[in-house]
Amino acid sequence: MADPRFFTPQGPFDLATLAGFAAATLADDADPDKTVKDVATLDGAGPDDISFLDNLLYRDQFASSGAGACVVAPKFAALAPEGMSLLLSEAPYKAYALIARAFYPETRSETGIAAGAVVHDTAHVAADGFVAAGAVVGAGAEIGARSVVGVNAVIGEGVIIGEDTQIGACASLSHCRVGHRVIVHPGASIGQDGFGFAPDPEGHVKVPQLGRVVIEDDVEIGANATIDRGSGPDTVIGRGSKIDNLVQIGHNVQIGKGCFVVAQVGISGSTRIGDHVSLAGQAGLIGHLKIGDGARVGAQAGVARDVPAGATVAGSPAVPVIQWHRQTAALARLVKPKGSNR
Amino acid sequence: MADPRFFTPQGPFDLATLAGFAAATLADDADPDKTVKDVATLDGAGPDDISFLDNLLYRDQFASSGAGACVVAPKFAALAPEGMSLLLSEAPYKAYALIARAFYPETRSETGIAAGAVVHDTAHVAADGFVAAGAVVGAGAEIGARSVVGVNAVIGEGVIIGEDTQIGACASLSHCRVGHRVIVHPGASIGQDGFGFAPDPEGHVKVPQLGRVVIEDDVEIGANATIDRGSGPDTVIGRGSKIDNLVQIGHNVQIGKGCFVVAQVGISGSTRIGDHVSLAGQAGLIGHLKIGDGARVGAQAGVARDVPAGATVAGSPAVPVIQWHRQTAALARLVKPKGSNR
Amino acid sequence: MADPRFFTPQGPFDLATLAGFAAATLADDADPDKTVKDVATLDGAGPDDISFLDNLLYRDQFASSGAGACVVAPKFAALAPEGMSLLLSEAPYKAYALIARAFYPETRSETGIAAGAVVHDTAHVAADGFVAAGAVVGAGAEIGARSVVGVNAVIGEGVIIGEDTQIGACASLSHCRVGHRVIVHPGASIGQDGFGFAPDPEGHVKVPQLGRVVIEDDVEIGANATIDRGSGPDTVIGRGSKIDNLVQIGHNVQIGKGCFVVAQVGISGSTRIGDHVSLAGQAGLIGHLKIGDGARVGAQAGVARDVPAGATVAGSPAVPVIQWHRQTAALARLVKPKGSNR
Repeated sequence: MADPRFFTPQGPFDLATLAGFAAATLADDADPDKTVKDVATLDGAGPDDISFLDNLLYRDQFASSGAGACVVAPKFAALAPEGMSLLLSEAPYKAYALIARAFYPETRSETGIAAGAVVHDTAHVAADGFVAAGAVVGAGAEIGARSVVGVNAVIGEGVIIGEDTQIGACASLSHCRVGHRVIVHPGASIGQDGFGFAPDPEGHVKVPQLGRVVIEDDVEIGANATIDRGSGPDTVIGRGSKIDNLVQIGHNVQIGKGCFVVAQVGISGSTRIGDHVSLAGQAGLIGHLKIGDGARVGAQAGVARDVPAGATVAGSPAVPVIQWHRQTAALARLVKPKGSNR
Repeated sequence: MADPRFFTPQGPFDLATLAGFAAATLADDADPDKTVKDVATLDGAGPDDISFLDNLLYRDQFASSGAGACVVAPKFAALAPEGMSLLLSEAPYKAYALIARAFYPETRSETGIAAGAVVHDTAHVAADGFVAAGAVVGAGAEIGARSVVGVNAVIGEGVIIGEDTQIGACASLSHCRVGHRVIVHPGASIGQDGFGFAPDPEGHVKVPQLGRVVIEDDVEIGANATIDRGSGPDTVIGRGSKIDNLVQIGHNVQIGKGCFVVAQVGISGSTRIGDHVSLAGQAGLIGHLKIGDGARVGAQAGVARDVPAGATVAGSPAVPVIQWHRQTAALARLVKPKGSNR
Repeated sequence: MADPRFFTPQGPFDLATLAGFAAATLADDADPDKTVKDVATLDGAGPDDISFLDNLLYRDQFASSGAGACVVAPKFAALAPEGMSLLLSEAPYKAYALIARAFYPETRSETGIAAGAVVHDTAHVAADGFVAAGAVVGAGAEIGARSVVGVNAVIGEGVIIGEDTQIGACASLSHCRVGHRVIVHPGASIGQDGFGFAPDPEGHVKVPQLGRVVIEDDVEIGANATIDRGSGPDTVIGRGSKIDNLVQIGHNVQIGKGCFVVAQVGISGSTRIGDHVSLAGQAGLIGHLKIGDGARVGAQAGVARDVPAGATVAGSPAVPVIQWHRQTAALARLVKPKGSNR
């Protein structure tokens, strides 16, 4: 299914092997030796493909899918069409992800410094690292083993990049330390001055920004996202957190481990976010807040107060999500014609 | 009026010729042979310039304008000052646009591969295409006739660019097919991985993103906008749709034909948008929605449900625009001092 | 405190000297000859460091800080721990900024055209200017004294850059005039076409954008921000205004002097903003508005009407901030259980 201009599948694999990759259970009537050649969407799959059902919005596509095999939660197995081989998993999307990664592993063959790249004499690029055409690596920078600096990307003086990390095209990094297995997508700007001024009617006074950005292992930073370096403390993105496109992270912000920060979120300076926090798209957080572990912030929420661990907030200004639903309903009732049952 | 450092007008043209370009009607008392040398704003125009009135906010500037000629709707012709020659059109802004394009046609003289560009041996650039300094074109990519790859832009492996298309400076494209007469503005990032993870407390699992971005003919993509490639299906921007700066478009999103997506809008994954839809600035749409043909979404709206064809919604969460106006008014009344008539 | 990979302090300085830099008053019991070696945060400072207290959120850190010296407002001096030398200032953050700039002045040693840069024959770069690797400077462009064009940045044809100005990595400028002491951060896109179309069901007609972007002295433009050039008039950013990351500024917008425009704000076309206006994060302004001098717009506000000078507005749609607080409270009361005193 994937366009061969861009993707080349590995495989084929038999169902038993795929079940092993996915930590899934083969349904009783499935043939463990059946061969699968590719992954596909429910409506695009054929008899040699494997697909998945995770979101019940797509149950009709599942019921009519021509996929030879499918990953599904046990409770929805009965919805499957005749003849489809099932891999059962309580986490079907994760199971699919593991299967898809077997068919399409990340591969990289180039190493060294491409023609047209500029690497400073005092920078160090690991022998099996790669600096692509047009990329510029500054004085004293370090690029770790198997890491890639993409086309026209910029690695500033002294920046440290760990191992197995990928820096996207046209991304710009300065004043930062980046861990292992990090992905920075194209156009991200990391490590520039934060928005620090002492306001003054005679002319705002710029405050030197003396901290860094620290990006821990397994983080992903979206395209055209911006992360300012700390003003003195560091700005920190914790291990395994995933930052989406066009997100703004202000100076001194600390994000914990395993968080999701969805597209176009803005986090103002010095706010601290715990572990496994989820910030939905376009949410905004003012500065100097504490957001507890496991908290969830709704899309477009405007957070102006601390959020306790485990809480879910929504609305602008943000309130507990139950209150937000009630407010929304109450507001709708205010304008309902009198006597209306709608 | 336009700064000659940056712009050189064609012409002059006589009024009859301009009326022809604009499909406008010359007013009875206008001299078809009168010469016009340039376009200008109402308040900056002189006797050799042509201007236009489209927004009644500017009626006073129209009434006092020194423009020698002006495009205006017939119903507002009576507001014109003495001595101004009028071109009458029911679509005065479009008429002005056509006249301005006659004075300032898009021109491009350079062809070939500039010094400092890097084009892979297996890429194909049309003989009359142009790859600017610092641009990098990857293996197997194709650049069509009269198309331009801007300074420091990046065209990834296998990407196909149609004819008469312009890719802006520092834009980055991968995994995509781009049509004819497309404009991609500077800094746009197109085709990177979507935000696809199977959440897992042990470490979120990245899901391979195996689709493409398909950009149809006559599309415009704004500066620093981001468009993720599909996860399996493609992300599609339909013919003639105009996407503004800093817009985020998630994986698998499908946008129909002739849409306007204004700055800083965010569209989450798998949402499908019909033809001639208008999304105003900073609106956000959650994933897996269907927005019908001709629908209109207000600025900063938060759309969490399907929107029927032709409907207009506003607010966060978004409701029909009439309800939103009523809710806004009801909320204001709640806090009005008792007995107040304000 | 600052990582020596990235920062090297000047100094040391004695307290009397620092008080002079900061226009602060030395407390009676402070030794003017005491030596200070660096700036530091309250909780990271030691006996050789100077810190500051500006936000009372951090009063406990102040009271327990090990900083040898600290800048503080006179009214909070009594909160200081034993043995801390105090510099008293009614503007402690500004005073700290001036001290930090003494320890960490902006320095730049390189001049000329770096290897790998491309400067057009007809461009002019001041002898003590610097064009970094991978940067491209177009025909007829002018780069003023002591100004820097960053790595992989793009300066379009005819662009004029003043003196002591810094253009960040991967930034792209066209059709603009930039003043003195301006900072453009990485990835900003300035001067591209505005979003100007005459809507037409047969295919929207692109309107030539014939104005420029004018950036006055002492302006700062954030990372990945976008500023469209005027459609005929210019887009103007007034002297000393500070624009944060990911801000969108539409065509013909005029921003006055000394404004703060915080991250992810969007300003639609032709809106005029006075002097010393503050727009908080993610606020959105529709087009053709007038925002008076000294006005303040709250975070996420949606401004659809003119705002008088000195007014503060909040909410979407934006209303006077007092009304917004009342509406927020009234809405919360609507859903409070009856008889509740919460």
